[in-house]
Amino acid sequence: MTQPDALTEPRGGVMPDSAFLRQLVAVIRAEDGHGQWDAKTDADLLAEFIVTPEERRLIPMMCDPEPEVLWRLSKFHDAVGLMIEKRTGVMAGQMDKFHHEGFGRVVLIAGRLVVMSRHLRDVHRWGFPTWAKLAEAGDKLVAEAVALIEQFPEAARA
Amino acid sequence: MTQPDALTEPRGGVMPDSAFLRQLVAVIRAEDGHGQWDAKTDADLLAEFIVTPEERRLIPMMCDPEPEVLWRLSKFHDAVGLMIEKRTGVMAGQMDKFHHEGFGRVVLIAGRLVVMSRHLRDVHRWGFPTWAKLAEAGDKLVAEAVALIEQFPEAARA
Repeated sequence: MTQPDALTEPRGGVMPDSAFLRQLVAVIRAEDGHGQWDAKTDADLLAEFIVTPEERRLIPMMCDPEPEVLWRLSKFHDAVGLMIEKRTGVMAGQMDKFHHEGFGRVVLIAGRLVVMSRHLRDVHRWGFPTWAKLAEAGDKLVAEAVALIEQFPEAARA
Repeated sequence: MTQPDALTEPRGGVMPDSAFLRQLVAVIRAEDGHGQWDAKTDADLLAEFIVTPEERRLIPMMCDPEPEVLWRLSKFHDAVGLMIEKRTGVMAGQMDKFHHEGFGRVVLIAGRLVVMSRHLRDVHRWGFPTWAKLAEAGDKLVAEAVALIEQFPEAARA
């Protein structure tokens, strides 16, 4: 496995100072009722959200997703929902439905408004090359949802 | 099994002339690509949507739902979605998520609007005592969704 930056940069690159990443870490630590992960760093907890280009090449094209990747997807969208709530005061709950072959749909619903709607495929390969890209993806979904809530405030609060 | 009306009325009572029931039958016949159900009457095809009070008493209180009842639920909500489209021109797609123990949520989404949102439980016992009640339940969901689309027309078409 060739990692051109392996000598100069850690896997996933430099972790940016990101409210979204902090929220995602908080969502994951909330699952750790017994404190088993207390000694883990944030980077440890988020390590599996990183899929470097080299790693991606080793993943088969077609494969049923493992429960772990569906769990990470769900935590990612929970973090998006919580950031939306912090920005707008509107709670957004997740619904998802995946075919066992790894395609499906995830929505976040606030009141009567679908504030996020994503069709995903190949979720067995889901991940981000860097922490910066992970943070950016979360921020983009939050920003789009906040804009929709501003556009349809009554439906979002219905 | 005591059926007080067994001598005077068929199971499910008299089938009313209902656009919703016709839609539900059409949804079910659409699955019959090979014409195996051509000889079946509408009442035959809808028979399992009826659960008489006597039958309900024989169903255990707690039980994981069979795939068949989840299939019927899905066809029922597809019929609701198609009636909504006929009344408003707006397509409404279904998403559902059930726990294996038989509780869950079903939504119909049109554009950015959640036109129907139902939390259901004990779906292993799902059914209606009469055809009239089945038609009424469908009509009520359609009417509520149409009212929501009239209330939030831009979100429904977004």
